[in-house]
Order: sequence, then C-alpha cells, then structure tokens
Amino acid sequence: MEFKASVIADFLHGTVEGDPDATVSAFAKIEEGHPGALSFLANPKYEKYLYETASGIVIINKAQKLERPVKCTLIRVDDAYRSFASLLELYASSQQEKSGREEPVFVAASVTLGENIFIGAFSYIAGNARIGNNVKIHQQVYIGENVAIGENTVLYPGVKIYHDCIIGSDCMIHSGAVIGADGFGFAPQNAADYKKIPQIGNVVIEDRVEIGANTCIDRATMGSTIIRKGVKLDNLIQVAHNVEIGENTVIAAQSGISGSCKVGRNCMFAGQVGLAGHLAIADGVKIGAQSGINASIKKPDSVILGSPGMDYQDCIKSYVVVRRLPDLKKKVDELERIIKGKDS
Amino acid sequence: MEFKASVIADFLHGTVEGDPDATVSAFAKIEEGHPGALSFLANPKYEKYLYETASGIVIINKAQKLERPVKCTLIRVDDAYRSFASLLELYASSQQEKSGREEPVFVAASVTLGENIFIGAFSYIAGNARIGNNVKIHQQVYIGENVAIGENTVLYPGVKIYHDCIIGSDCMIHSGAVIGADGFGFAPQNAADYKKIPQIGNVVIEDRVEIGANTCIDRATMGSTIIRKGVKLDNLIQVAHNVEIGENTVIAAQSGISGSCKVGRNCMFAGQVGLAGHLAIADGVKIGAQSGINASIKKPDSVILGSPGMDYQDCIKSYVVVRRLPDLKKKVDELERIIKGKDS
Amino acid sequence: MEFKASVIADFLHGTVEGDPDATVSAFAKIEEGHPGALSFLANPKYEKYLYETASGIVIINKAQKLERPVKCTLIRVDDAYRSFASLLELYASSQQEKSGREEPVFVAASVTLGENIFIGAFSYIAGNARIGNNVKIHQQVYIGENVAIGENTVLYPGVKIYHDCIIGSDCMIHSGAVIGADGFGFAPQNAADYKKIPQIGNVVIEDRVEIGANTCIDRATMGSTIIRKGVKLDNLIQVAHNVEIGENTVIAAQSGISGSCKVGRNCMFAGQVGLAGHLAIADGVKIGAQSGINASIKKPDSVILGSPGMDYQDCIKSYVVVRRLPDLKKKVDELERIIKGKDS
Repeated sequence: MEFKASVIADFLHGTVEGDPDATVSAFAKIEEGHPGALSFLANPKYEKYLYETASGIVIINKAQKLERPVKCTLIRVDDAYRSFASLLELYASSQQEKSGREEPVFVAASVTLGENIFIGAFSYIAGNARIGNNVKIHQQVYIGENVAIGENTVLYPGVKIYHDCIIGSDCMIHSGAVIGADGFGFAPQNAADYKKIPQIGNVVIEDRVEIGANTCIDRATMGSTIIRKGVKLDNLIQVAHNVEIGENTVIAAQSGISGSCKVGRNCMFAGQVGLAGHLAIADGVKIGAQSGINASIKKPDSVILGSPGMDYQDCIKSYVVVRRLPDLKKKVDELERIIKGKDS
Repeated sequence: MEFKASVIADFLHGTVEGDPDATVSAFAKIEEGHPGALSFLANPKYEKYLYETASGIVIINKAQKLERPVKCTLIRVDDAYRSFASLLELYASSQQEKSGREEPVFVAASVTLGENIFIGAFSYIAGNARIGNNVKIHQQVYIGENVAIGENTVLYPGVKIYHDCIIGSDCMIHSGAVIGADGFGFAPQNAADYKKIPQIGNVVIEDRVEIGANTCIDRATMGSTIIRKGVKLDNLIQVAHNVEIGENTVIAAQSGISGSCKVGRNCMFAGQVGLAGHLAIADGVKIGAQSGINASIKKPDSVILGSPGMDYQDCIKSYVVVRRLPDLKKKVDELERIIKGKDS
Repeated sequence: MEFKASVIADFLHGTVEGDPDATVSAFAKIEEGHPGALSFLANPKYEKYLYETASGIVIINKAQKLERPVKCTLIRVDDAYRSFASLLELYASSQQEKSGREEPVFVAASVTLGENIFIGAFSYIAGNARIGNNVKIHQQVYIGENVAIGENTVLYPGVKIYHDCIIGSDCMIHSGAVIGADGFGFAPQNAADYKKIPQIGNVVIEDRVEIGANTCIDRATMGSTIIRKGVKLDNLIQVAHNVEIGENTVIAAQSGISGSCKVGRNCMFAGQVGLAGHLAIADGVKIGAQSGINASIKKPDSVILGSPGMDYQDCIKSYVVVRRLPDLKKKVDELERIIKGKDS
C-alpha cells in the first residue's frame, strides 16, 4: 500500500514541507533509507542523515532546524518519535486483521467461540475450549481440552497449549512456544529407577503477556504455574512447574527459572540467567546476563550479577581481580619468598 | 467428574471420618485447598493446614492425631502420600485413554500399526514406520520413514521424529521435541568455506525415557545417538550427534551435551550445564547448575560444580574467596607496602 | 538398496580385493561394523579394526599395507576418506529426491512456485510467497506472506517462517526453527508497564546457510536481521533482532546473540556462548564455550574465553589460580600473621 505525504500529515496532525504528493510504501531507519521509504529523525546524533537519506519522506520535530536543503519531503510534528511509533503500530495492527476460518481445521463441537475469530489452517481446538472475541489462532496451533483464551490474544503458527491452561486477554504467543507440558518431577524408586510424579496442575497466563518463540512454560504438579499481567518473556526461556512470575517482569532469551520459584514484579533478567529451585526474588530485582542465582533475593531493587550471583558492584570488582589473578599469585609468591627468606 | 468420599475410601482401602457423601472433582495442595478439592497431609510441617484447609476431603495417615475438630471430611489410610499419588496416577492415565483416528491425518500405506493406537488430527506417519500397541500420537506430530515406536509411548502435539529413528516402549515425548535432526558436522574446504558432512546415522531411544518440550536429540553421523532406559530429559536440552546417555540419568532444562560424549548411568545434571565434546562421564556423577565440563570425569559418583568444573566442595570454597577477591587484593597490596617499605 | 563391491569400485574408480559380488546396504564406522555394512579406513589409529571388523566391504587407501589377512572385501582408492564421503553425500542427497505435493496442503493462489518442488502434507504457504526450483518443503511447515525461498533449499518438518522473510538458495533449516518472530522490544510507559515496539523488519538469510532445530532468528525492528552466506547455526540458538552474522561463521548449540550485534566472517563460537547487545565482533574471532561477551572484540582472529570474556590464554591462567584460591588466601593470611606479628 502506498501513502501520500499529505495523507500521512493529516493523520499525524502535521505539516508537509516539500512534495505533498510524494508517496511511500515502507518504513526504514533514516540511515538505511531508500526511495519509497518513510523515516523519522528525533535523535540529534542522527541529524546528518537528514541531508543524506534516500528516504522519500522524513518525519521531524517542529523545532528541527535545517542547516542545508534536504532532498526528501518533510512532515513536521510535535514529537517525531511518537508520531512514527503510532504509524508503526497502525501498520502492525493491520497485520492482525484476519478473521474467519481457513480449511482444514479441527474444532471440537463443544468449543465456545467468540466473535471475529481467525483460525488458520491445520489448527486444532479440543473439547470445551473457550476462545474469546477477536482471538487470532494462526496455522498449525494446538489448543487442548478445557483451555480458555481471553480476548484479542494472538497465537502464532505452531503454538502448543496443553489441556486446562488459561490464557488472558491481549496476549501474544510466538511460534513454537509450549504452554503446559509436564513439569519435570520424578520420585526415586528401587535402587536407581524413577517413577513419574503426575503433573495435574495447569498454567495460568494473565493479560498483556508476550511469550517468545520456542519458550516453554510447564504446568504445575498441582495448582498453577502463574505468569502475571504484563510479563514479557523472550525466546527459548524455560519456566518450570509451580513458578510464579510477578507483574510486568521482563526476562531475556534463554533464561531458566527452576521449579516453585516466586519472582516479584517489575524484575528484569538479562539473557541466559538461571535460578535454582524454590527461590523468592523481590520486586524490582535486576539480574545480569548469565548470572546463576542459588539463594533468594530479599531486598527489592537489588542489582545482581555473577554465578553464583552477588551484588553487581561487588561482582564487577571481583571480575577485575579475577582477570589479574595470575599477577596476584605471583606477587604473593614473591612476598612469601621475601618473608620466608628473612625468616630463615 | 465427581467422586464421593465413600468411593475414594473403598478404592484406597481406607476409612471415612465425616460425611461419606462429600464429593470432590479436583486435586489441590492442602494449603491451596478449595471446596470440591481433594488434598492430603503426610508431612507434619503442613499439619496446621489440616484445621484451616478449604478442601472438601483430606487423605491422612491412620496414625494422624487430631488436636482440634476439622471442617473437612477425612479418609484415613496407611500411607497418605502414596494413596494420593495413586489417585493422581489414575487421573493422569485417564487422560491417555484416547484411541482411534481423528481426521485429517496422513498415514502412508506401508505403515505397520498395532492395536488401540490414537492418531490425532494433522499428524503424519511416513512409509515403513512401525507403531506399537497403545501408542498415542497426538496432533501435528511428524514420524519419518522407517521410524519404529514401542508400545504405550506417548507423543505430544508437534513432536518431530526424523527418518530411521527408534523409540522404545513407555516413553513420553513432549511438544516441540525434535528427534533425529542432523548432527552439526562441517568440514572446512577452500579457505573459509564449509562442506556439510552427511549425517546418516539415527537416534535410538530405549524404554521408559521422558523427553521434555523443545528438546533436541541429533542423529549420529554414522551409527546411533543413544538414550538408554529410564533416562529423563527436561525441556530445551541439546543432545548432539553420537552421544550416549546411560540408564536412569536425569538432566535438567537447557543443558547441552556435545558430540560423542558418553554419559554414565544414574547421573544427575542440573540446569544449563554444558559438556564439551568427546568426554566420558562416570556413573552416578552429579553436576551442579551452569557448570561447564571440559574434561572427562572418571571417578564414579563425583560431585562437580563450576565452569570449568571442579570438585563441588573445592568449588564452593573457591566461590567464597572469589566474592572477597577485592579484599584479598587489598590485603596483598598492603603486605607488599609493608614489606617493600621495610626492604627499602 | 543393496550394492555390489564391483559396482561401488566402478563408481569410485577403485579396485576390488576379495569378493566382487559382496553386497552392502548400510554405512558403519569400521569399529562398529556389521555384515552388510560398508566402512572405510583412513586414520592409521584405527588400522587394527581392519582385521577385526564385521563390515562386509571396507574402502582403503591404495597405499595401505596389510599385515595379516582380512575377512572383508576391500576396495582400494586414492583417498579412502574422500571416496567414502562422496558415497555418503550420494546417499544423503537421494533422501531429498521427493517432489510433488502431498494432501492436504494449503497453498494460497498468489504463491509463485518453481519447478520440481516438494510440499509435504499439512504445510501452509501464504499469499505472494515465491518458492524457487527444487525446494523441498517438508510436512507441517509454515511459510508466511511475501516470503521468498531460493533454489534447492530444504525446510524440515515444522519449520515456521514469518511474513516478509527472505531465505537464500541451498539452505537447510531443521525442524522447529522459527524465522522472523518479533524481536524483543518494549518501551516503558507509566510507572512500570511496557508498550510493545512494533517489529516490522524482516530476516534475510543468504545462500548455503544451515539452521539447527528449534533455533530462533528474530525479525528486525526495522530493516533486516541478516545471516550471511555459508553461516552454520546449531540447535536452540537465539539470534535477536537486527543482528548481522558474517559469512561462514559457525555457532554451536544454545548460544545467544543479543540485539544489533554485528558478528564478523569466519568466526567460531562454541556452545552456550552469550553476547550482550550492540557489540561488534571482528572477523575470525573464536569464542570458547559458555563465554559471556560484554564488549566488542576489535582484533581479528582473537581467541576469547570466560564470562566476562578475556584473552583465551589469560583466562586459562586465571582459571588455574581460581581452582587454588583457598590456598592462595591461606598463604596471604599466613604472611599477614607473620608480618603483623613482627609489626606488633
């Protein structure tokens, strides 16, 4: 789809400088512009690109001064970043406008379907599932028995949701994510063999949660594994059985949360972090990449780093010494020679 | 489904105290009880919940003394934990009672099918596959050519098994697991380019193995990647080509075993452990979370921690010093000043 | 399929010693041979197996001397390893000879299909996708709108490719890999809540790239996440939005590359490596397993190890001291007692 500068300016309540009939059909960073692309300039650091960019239209702040002529058409607005972001959102939401049902799909007779739902081909909805209004179930999705899904939630191709799990409204779950597989629980029996502990709980995901591709959230042994409102999980994350993750906590890719951990609100975990089982993490805790946490963190807003985890500043100081350990050892050996030499 | 206290007591050879007509339709931990839920009490630590719980029925040990009246109906048995576990198993196995074939599925004409098999919609079984009795192939599963699957094995939605792999009896493979993708083998050619080394072996999974969601087990270059009887693998684990994992070894989420490793029996690896290639790990070895193992472990029952891995106790002692390294360095610098000062 | 020694020798331009009518139907390592298997001997380390192997036919170098009689039929060639590899490749490529279309599939009317394409059952190709000649789309694959796929590329069962992504020629993508899911981008709003930043870029994968099972490559926020020619990615790898990975770089399983990293050519990363965001890694850099890189690496061909990463040799030296830190601390304490004792 092509849009004219004049139409975009109207939508943004902005003003055009240049050709009001200039058209664009794509977005691009100002430094990667091309004819037919719409860009924006907000950060003064990128100002030089305003004069070089190949983009057809650039959104700028009203206050932006021009030092030289520009080749592109300009649209001046109050807040260039915000205006550009609102266009991106408009574009992104237009991608989710599908509704109806492709064929073949499998929808059990006892499923309850809201309005304006999309069901992509090769998707499967088992008995007694309840699907809210405006839900988009893309292709090759599996929804088990008794699953409930709230309004406006989007399930990308290949998502698997086991029986009895509950997904909130306005969630987005990416391809390959597995919600509700069995928790990892086995009781030793005989000398060396294991017996499976049945995992009969479920997963409860509240509203506005985003879950990345191939992330796994295991069902509880009993009760629920709970992901609270506004949580954002990146790709390839492991969330074990009976974990609870507090509101608006954000976790980066490949992190793993062991069984029965209780993570607070507004935490931020970087990538490849690991938490041992049964830990409590206070609200607002930040944990650096690859950290390994083996004890509860009780102080809110702690900043932790390392494996095992420790106070961030202490960890940075320790790392500085670790890098120079061979020197430290040499120095100690030298001191020992001096002292023991004197002693002898 | 609802069950009366009297029916549950009969099944467990127990006795009812309270209302024999009380009914329950769910399981709950005693501390998370609700009307209509069945709970148990075995651990004295939780005894106080017996008087507080909202659960309708609680299973307790015959010997359990009551200090106060309880609101719930009690069922007394010899071993409350075991009785409760047997009910959980009964419930869990009832989830796997499906048989027959949903539509559409793709089953090649040359497939050999046992009795009482379930094949879910959108599943695919390629030529010459052999599927044992009572196997449950859930939805959207892929089974490649010449694959053999033993009796009672359960494949959850979306499992992918490449051609020629062999799966034992009584196995459970969770959604998104990939069995038999190519091992990661490339030979340098020219200056900087790589040529793929064909991966023509397979994966052999023996009986009673459980494999977690999105775990990957690569096929051997030649021969077999082998997962022995009773092995339990958690989610998001990587098992590279030509690995062998010994009987009843248990590996937690996000661990990775590099090519040609030979892991012994009854080992336990915690989460996010990594093994370098071509290592041999003795029987009964325990490896702590996030450890990185770069040498074979020859002593059975070793307990290892750290990256690189070392004896667990030594590692814990080293970690204590690491946390205080800046202090140690200060002390050494101070000693140096004293000594060098004297020397000068 | 069975092959006679005389036929194999003709194909390899070799000569038969023994029974020209001996037949084989499988490949095996010489030390794991069985009747009906073809093996090779190139490495003198394995020479003893030549006299012990149960393989029916063994390919050896022309120059190979025999110290004792052998039981198997021999085929002598100029380069036994290369001849064997060429047979493996012939076998592996014969696995990809399928073409045509299984049913059911979903192929939108606006899809452009080349010649000799295979589309497996339950696969989905959305509008305006362009599929090159000889592409093999195995079962349960999802190809989003406007995706382009070059010639000879193989997509294994269950691969998911989101809209607008571009895949080159001669690529191989394994089961469960997710190409083009949203990058992980959220802007804080209000006190503690997050707003999704639309991810409207794509993923561009150039020619001869291999991508492992369940690996995730996120689409760019704007612009492209780029995987250059000849890159090889193992299983369960995370590649975040706006990353660029240079030609012929090889990355082992479970590594994670954070957003906007630019990795050079011909790099080699071992398993479970993590890179922080916005780093530049020079060409030819090698990074050891479980390393955590938090700063750009500017020197080509650097060899890096550790978390945080440092020069490989320095890291090894530090690790040696880390293992003996408790001893070092004791020594320092002892020196202190001696010195302070003197001082007092």
